[in-house]
Amino acid sequence: MDRQYPSAALERAVGEFSRLPGIGRKTALRLVLHLLSRPEEEVSTFGRVFSTLKQDIRYCKVCHNISDTDICSVCANPKRDGSIVCVVENVQDVLAIENTMQFNGLYHVLGGVISPVDGIGPSDLQIASLVERVSAGGISEVILALSPTMEGDTTNFFISRKLAGLGVKLSVIARGVTVGNNLEYADEVSLGRSILDRTPFV
Amino acid sequence: MDRQYPSAALERAVGEFSRLPGIGRKTALRLVLHLLSRPEEEVSTFGRVFSTLKQDIRYCKVCHNISDTDICSVCANPKRDGSIVCVVENVQDVLAIENTMQFNGLYHVLGGVISPVDGIGPSDLQIASLVERVSAGGISEVILALSPTMEGDTTNFFISRKLAGLGVKLSVIARGVTVGNNLEYADEVSLGRSILDRTPFV
Repeated sequence: MDRQYPSAALERAVGEFSRLPGIGRKTALRLVLHLLSRPEEEVSTFGRVFSTLKQDIRYCKVCHNISDTDICSVCANPKRDGSIVCVVENVQDVLAIENTMQFNGLYHVLGGVISPVDGIGPSDLQIASLVERVSAGGISEVILALSPTMEGDTTNFFISRKLAGLGVKLSVIARGVTVGNNLEYADEVSLGRSILDRTPFV
Repeated sequence: MDRQYPSAALERAVGEFSRLPGIGRKTALRLVLHLLSRPEEEVSTFGRVFSTLKQDIRYCKVCHNISDTDICSVCANPKRDGSIVCVVENVQDVLAIENTMQFNGLYHVLGGVISPVDGIGPSDLQIASLVERVSAGGISEVILALSPTMEGDTTNFFISRKLAGLGVKLSVIARGVTVGNNLEYADEVSLGRSILDRTPFV
């Protein structure tokens, strides 16, 4: 319904922003006009960072996390415990787990979960390289930290079958009530799991 | 509280996005990861559009609206009525009024409103050029279409003093109840204005 913008350059810039997820044409226009109000150097830097983004960013050859180098800073850190590998969906999940400061092992970034609806099968994910990594030895435990959804569970099951017989301990992150919330607001499934998977009171 | 990203290039890209208004670090990360999932050509185009944005975009010498040329498409259109000039705050307001398809005159984009709190005085706005434009003749009416706020009203008043004696008719966009809403939800000030400024029933 929008009438055309008074400038093709503006139209182009708005078009680029509005192609990003969650950004509509109004927000895109606001962002472009914000950039126009900034110094030229700042705006051209903004552009330059993204024009070389795909070339600048590499993926760790071991865990497939985003990295500046062939081996990421986690995998290359001698203080991390290489015998435990935590399998996650994506980069955000690595950051989320790192932020908890409760994990000192290494990661394996799958790049998604098995989802037939979205056309994502096992071969689209870094599952073969996980099996290879475990087969190479030196890993005693694999923690499955995928989303507690049907797709996550399917992927967990698929991975568990692939790793069976490789002599590695397989675990899955705990499901239960969330810390800090009143019990009455917990969903039934999580509350049920929290009783089934109860842990010894220290 | 965020631990550092595993890559300086990622850090840089997230930093650039999160400097935009309304975009936090989590959203910025999501946008960067979205771009990384796109083809290289698409991402580099995204960057190139913004690296030259400030050079690509010009402002109309007459009305100061965004333009690809020295004179914008509205000012250059012989079918528009050059005797009526609508004074607006910014580019979005031009688009909003154009979308109504109720105005066939020209615009004058101030670039903001007088706001001492934000350090914006009359000299930061395109007021002098408006006075010049009116003084040059050929304009019979100036419509003030600024936001119905204290800053907008202050600016309206300032402009009205500057244009006094130039023999131009000065009007302000109508304030009243919004179309399509129940009267009981209208705010008191707008409802009061709608009675004071009532128009003959056709």
